[in-house]
Amino acid sequence: MKVLFIDKKIDYLGTQLAPHWIYRNFGVLGDAVVAFVGEADVPADNMVDIADALEKAFIYSPLMLHFIVEHFNNNLDLAIYRQRLLIVCIKEELEQFEVPVRRLGDDLYVNKGKLSVSIATVSAVSSLIHVGLNIDNQGTPVKTSALSELGIRDVKAFAEKVMLRYKRELEQIYEARCKVRGI
Amino acid sequence: MKVLFIDKKIDYLGTQLAPHWIYRNFGVLGDAVVAFVGEADVPADNMVDIADALEKAFIYSPLMLHFIVEHFNNNLDLAIYRQRLLIVCIKEELEQFEVPVRRLGDDLYVNKGKLSVSIATVSAVSSLIHVGLNIDNQGTPVKTSALSELGIRDVKAFAEKVMLRYKRELEQIYEARCKVRGI
Amino acid sequence: MKVLFIDKKIDYLGTQLAPHWIYRNFGVLGDAVVAFVGEADVPADNMVDIADALEKAFIYSPLMLHFIVEHFNNNLDLAIYRQRLLIVCIKEELEQFEVPVRRLGDDLYVNKGKLSVSIATVSAVSSLIHVGLNIDNQGTPVKTSALSELGIRDVKAFAEKVMLRYKRELEQIYEARCKVRGI
Amino acid sequence: MKVLFIDKKIDYLGTQLAPHWIYRNFGVLGDAVVAFVGEADVPADNMVDIADALEKAFIYSPLMLHFIVEHFNNNLDLAIYRQRLLIVCIKEELEQFEVPVRRLGDDLYVNKGKLSVSIATVSAVSSLIHVGLNIDNQGTPVKTSALSELGIRDVKAFAEKVMLRYKRELEQIYEARCKVRGI
Amino acid sequence: MKVLFIDKKIDYLGTQLAPHWIYRNFGVLGDAVVAFVGEADVPADNMVDIADALEKAFIYSPLMLHFIVEHFNNNLDLAIYRQRLLIVCIKEELEQFEVPVRRLGDDLYVNKGKLSVSIATVSAVSSLIHVGLNIDNQGTPVKTSALSELGIRDVKAFAEKVMLRYKRELEQIYEARCKVRGI
Amino acid sequence: MKVLFIDKKIDYLGTQLAPHWIYRNFGVLGDAVVAFVGEADVPADNMVDIADALEKAFIYSPLMLHFIVEHFNNNLDLAIYRQRLLIVCIKEELEQFEVPVRRLGDDLYVNKGKLSVSIATVSAVSSLIHVGLNIDNQGTPVKTSALSELGIRDVKAFAEKVMLRYKRELEQIYEARCKVRGI
Repeated sequence: MKVLFIDKKIDYLGTQLAPHWIYRNFGVLGDAVVAFVGEADVPADNMVDIADALEKAFIYSPLMLHFIVEHFNNNLDLAIYRQRLLIVCIKEELEQFEVPVRRLGDDLYVNKGKLSVSIATVSAVSSLIHVGLNIDNQGTPVKTSALSELGIRDVKAFAEKVMLRYKRELEQIYEARCKVRGI
Repeated sequence: MKVLFIDKKIDYLGTQLAPHWIYRNFGVLGDAVVAFVGEADVPADNMVDIADALEKAFIYSPLMLHFIVEHFNNNLDLAIYRQRLLIVCIKEELEQFEVPVRRLGDDLYVNKGKLSVSIATVSAVSSLIHVGLNIDNQGTPVKTSALSELGIRDVKAFAEKVMLRYKRELEQIYEARCKVRGI
Repeated sequence: MKVLFIDKKIDYLGTQLAPHWIYRNFGVLGDAVVAFVGEADVPADNMVDIADALEKAFIYSPLMLHFIVEHFNNNLDLAIYRQRLLIVCIKEELEQFEVPVRRLGDDLYVNKGKLSVSIATVSAVSSLIHVGLNIDNQGTPVKTSALSELGIRDVKAFAEKVMLRYKRELEQIYEARCKVRGI
Repeated sequence: MKVLFIDKKIDYLGTQLAPHWIYRNFGVLGDAVVAFVGEADVPADNMVDIADALEKAFIYSPLMLHFIVEHFNNNLDLAIYRQRLLIVCIKEELEQFEVPVRRLGDDLYVNKGKLSVSIATVSAVSSLIHVGLNIDNQGTPVKTSALSELGIRDVKAFAEKVMLRYKRELEQIYEARCKVRGI
Repeated sequence: MKVLFIDKKIDYLGTQLAPHWIYRNFGVLGDAVVAFVGEADVPADNMVDIADALEKAFIYSPLMLHFIVEHFNNNLDLAIYRQRLLIVCIKEELEQFEVPVRRLGDDLYVNKGKLSVSIATVSAVSSLIHVGLNIDNQGTPVKTSALSELGIRDVKAFAEKVMLRYKRELEQIYEARCKVRGI
Repeated sequence: MKVLFIDKKIDYLGTQLAPHWIYRNFGVLGDAVVAFVGEADVPADNMVDIADALEKAFIYSPLMLHFIVEHFNNNLDLAIYRQRLLIVCIKEELEQFEVPVRRLGDDLYVNKGKLSVSIATVSAVSSLIHVGLNIDNQGTPVKTSALSELGIRDVKAFAEKVMLRYKRELEQIYEARCKVRGI
């Protein structure tokens, strides 16, 4: 699993949740997690969550830390389990900063303000996960919290620690899988 | 997914990590999570973790809260993802009691004392998970922590909340899976 | 598995065989079977059976009882086995009315008149089944039979019994799966 | 899929439900269905249905027509769907003889007498199905019906038609699978 | 698995790598391998290899022997293993002609001239493989070799031997799978 | 995928084809290929090929180069495809030495002498492959060839090249899988 922080600002429009987006744009081949910073502005047409699309919900945040994960396996159940673990990794990294964060499914909340948006889905050849964390939260459509309020100043360092934690989590799962006998 | 707290004391010897143990003993058919209280004394021969077996490690605790989960699906990777989420559910329930708990893979620590043991494996027809949490920890072979020290007095109520949390987690994952379109 | 009879007349054009059609239109989330009554008029372009499309066959019936099933599992083989069982459930429900019905694969015949059309396919996230049973059969392109001739007056009650039968069938299969040991 | 009627009397003890039993004894390699005639006397220890084993149920019939199916695929869900279709094939063949047979899951009844026993399970390399149909039913532990009462005189011819029907059913499912486009 | 040599010249544009192309055009239903002769001229837009598409590579050859394989199974990993074995079958057939051929992944080289192009991919319902072997190689964009130089005069006979070899290879794999016990 | 040549002589009795044998004995965790040198003497009871066991065949060779591969994936079909590719890797490495080797399924022949024995199977948690190549061939039960006759003097270097070739082959397959778009 490869890890990359992209130093260029990229606005997230939902179009980045696409197979091979990481490979096409950054030359990283195979299972990977990348992070970058940018606005989030996902029109209803680009949303892959049918419930949100039905409610004409949209996603807006002036500045977010984005994670895009691609696994070359198109099992949707597994993709959602992995998304949950990525969310847990973010929560646990925030706990290092003594941020009192709550998780509800794939959402993170701090003091009842929603910190994150997230989705997991599949293409014909891979599974894809997006997580966005508010850095700044002026103008967000619901009550939110943001990394800037929570004392996370070095967003890049934070992102790298989250990605490393996720990478290690999956490595440990693989090792656990290889150590156990059937019954 | 069915949920059951068994009010009878049962000592955990590793033999309970067996297909249909829940059904044979408690008549609960299908995917289920059960909890009970008892000693833990797993001889090396009953251990399914090869690394532990090689090190002649054994598991001993005078009193533990045990969870046994059986899913009728024999995908070992998925079983380990589910085990991780069960561990996360326990951690998050402990956070309701303001217990500062850390997770490392499938282990939980409080103040560097190991609170838990856990394993996930598969049979020909199902996957099985065991988690044990020390209630008391006299005579444990490593430095441990225990629910009794952490202010968890009503172990049954705690167990039921954990099981409900796990059940809801899996329901939310199923709902998420059904709401998302492919890309 | 959720079950719903939709009391509104809906003409079947093939466009209803789409992922999340049930959820988008009726708010029913997850594995489900729904039934409704309406014309069937599927142009060759909407047909998912390549053999039919090649033959420029089309489906027309002035009034049909339609079933749409969605399972959130995209295994096409399993989808076809489930389609066969749904067809068997319809046959067995008709037998309650002493209708002498024959099954050939996924087709039902009464006195050599074709009673049904059916297809099963997959999307990226789910599998979908359509079955249509003639209620009336004026103007159908082949020799057909129809529920109205067979003494099935209360089409809604019939549909609900078929759906319940299918739901129970799948529940029994799940229970059988959970009761058996490997060898 | 290969088809074989074995002309030798073989008593069914449950030990025949084993991987490669067909290949080891009759040299038939690969997916196959075989049939033979013999007593059925399965002690509780050989039963693979946990529910039956718990109830100390046993299977006894003085003379049965037995089918053993082996598919070299170890998906238990699929095995149970196939078992259901084999039971449906037997029901439909009986309908050719105007026998009014009812199916409940994997059981067949004629005039409230149980005609059949059946089980499906998996080994590490394959799935296995057994179906037994009473030919004679003196001394059976529950109320039963039997082929001899139902006008099925030529048991071998009946068995061969059932096996052919099952083979065709699976071929049609394969063809249906190959004809359909995704959506 | 069906085998067909198509005696009509067909230029390969990449559009033939499509689900049911074989069935729609030649009426061959189910898993199949077909071969034909024609130009190869695949524009970048039709390429399914992202690396090639990114490099604006294209495929051109004045005359190639083409193989198209369709398996009704949409496991991409398995599709690539099968593609490798088809390439190995071609290499081994060339060895019958004492052609010193080297394989690198899915490419074949003779005297450092590239003999082949190949790709494997999946649709929602099947997996597809294309292999093209230069018959003639005037105007190819890289250094190539060609069957005409290698003493393969009867291209149709060669194609039929390759297809037979591939068919047998898969049959042997199936037989091996059915002969082995689990451990 | 880890690669290890074991410098200690180990006689192959069939017992080494066991899950976690590599991990238990050499501490190598996860997917791995190891090689070692030793006698081969597999009694019929240890044979996992039913055909060989039925024929009371046994395997004997005074000195063989052995490969044991374990992949933590229990798909038997995939295991056999991988076994075929390992055999191809051995053939292609022998071609570097200008040895005219023929492959028939999973067997290698040089001048009609059988060079190899091989089997692939699965356990509940993994798949396992054994390949043995005669180094010396006195006393073998069939006509054989041996590496010592073929100019392969440095057996360890040869083994390491084969293992590297296999490792690269699987890496290339993974990369190919990650580069291709669905259709």
